[in-house]
Amino acid sequence: MKVLVVGATGTVGQAVVAELSKRHEVIAASRSSATHAVDVHSAASIEALFQKVGKLDAIVATVGEVHFGPLADMSGEQFRKGLNSKLMGQVELALIGQRYLNDGGSITLTSGILSEQPIRLGANATAVNRAVEGFAVGAAIELPRGIRINVVSATVLQESLASYGPFFIGFEAAPAARVALAYARSVDGAQTGQVYRVG
Amino acid sequence: MKVLVVGATGTVGQAVVAELSKRHEVIAASRSSATHAVDVHSAASIEALFQKVGKLDAIVATVGEVHFGPLADMSGEQFRKGLNSKLMGQVELALIGQRYLNDGGSITLTSGILSEQPIRLGANATAVNRAVEGFAVGAAIELPRGIRINVVSATVLQESLASYGPFFIGFEAAPAARVALAYARSVDGAQTGQVYRVG
Repeated sequence: MKVLVVGATGTVGQAVVAELSKRHEVIAASRSSATHAVDVHSAASIEALFQKVGKLDAIVATVGEVHFGPLADMSGEQFRKGLNSKLMGQVELALIGQRYLNDGGSITLTSGILSEQPIRLGANATAVNRAVEGFAVGAAIELPRGIRINVVSATVLQESLASYGPFFIGFEAAPAARVALAYARSVDGAQTGQVYRVG
Repeated sequence: MKVLVVGATGTVGQAVVAELSKRHEVIAASRSSATHAVDVHSAASIEALFQKVGKLDAIVATVGEVHFGPLADMSGEQFRKGLNSKLMGQVELALIGQRYLNDGGSITLTSGILSEQPIRLGANATAVNRAVEGFAVGAAIELPRGIRINVVSATVLQESLASYGPFFIGFEAAPAARVALAYARSVDGAQTGQVYRVG
């Protein structure tokens, strides 16, 4: 398969590229890529990337940020940052990318464990992650030509514990290489409308 | 209790006002209200409403629209309409309103059955409804002073079947008066972080 990974330089993205490259032709895109740069905040930038890479068998998004901060001080503008990045970045990739997928192709998006397990400072993350999952579940029943869409929702990464560990006390971390297997299940598998949870 | 209902002229809003007025002082706000007008797309308009009504014991939001349309043609701009209206309108009401609530007060937001039961044309609705629920679940663990937040997710209204019935074949409709009971459970009850589903 020909697979586009957007967010390929992130911790999860690198692991996904490594896992999928065992069997597939992987195109690694990211904001800073020399050959396949994309800004997921811009529909024009996304469209240009798809124009450049042409027809695909799978699109994987491991991209986007959310706002972390205390609810008491949270502004609508801060909340919108997460919507514009992790939610709309991935939604735009799916909405535009559906037209570049071959029959039977797939889209795999990224949510996260805060979808189900809220933490302090994380109201935006829980909302955004659930929205990503809802978009995929809703889109799955409308995609034509056997095109599938799924989401991977992983726990905190072992590789991120140095930075985020204090916010995730009591959460079992997972190595990115294990999280990448869930993306492979989505890309190489046959299900649609699924949320693959890696706890 | 002193309760603010935003979206009080809608089908659900009217039923909620009727139900809560049996026991509480209800302030009915809506876009077109002569006395308590509010545009939930504007943080300044929301802030002005709260300034006008003063301290409250409960805030109920039955407000906001989503985008319905085929996934194949959906644009990011269309998707953002639902985010700006039903999601951000309610999130802004909660973020701003938390400062106007008395100790032990409550916030009750509105999602909908498409959160769990996607239909054609409804990918935006499923995403937005799940985001509203995620925000409430995330916010519930951070709100101080015993302030609670819940969501009501109802099936299609009997009163709306003339307009929306063809999109909801096989769904059991509920009268708005029955849906209003779930809002009363949130306002008069003691739970937080709940999604009250009315099927």
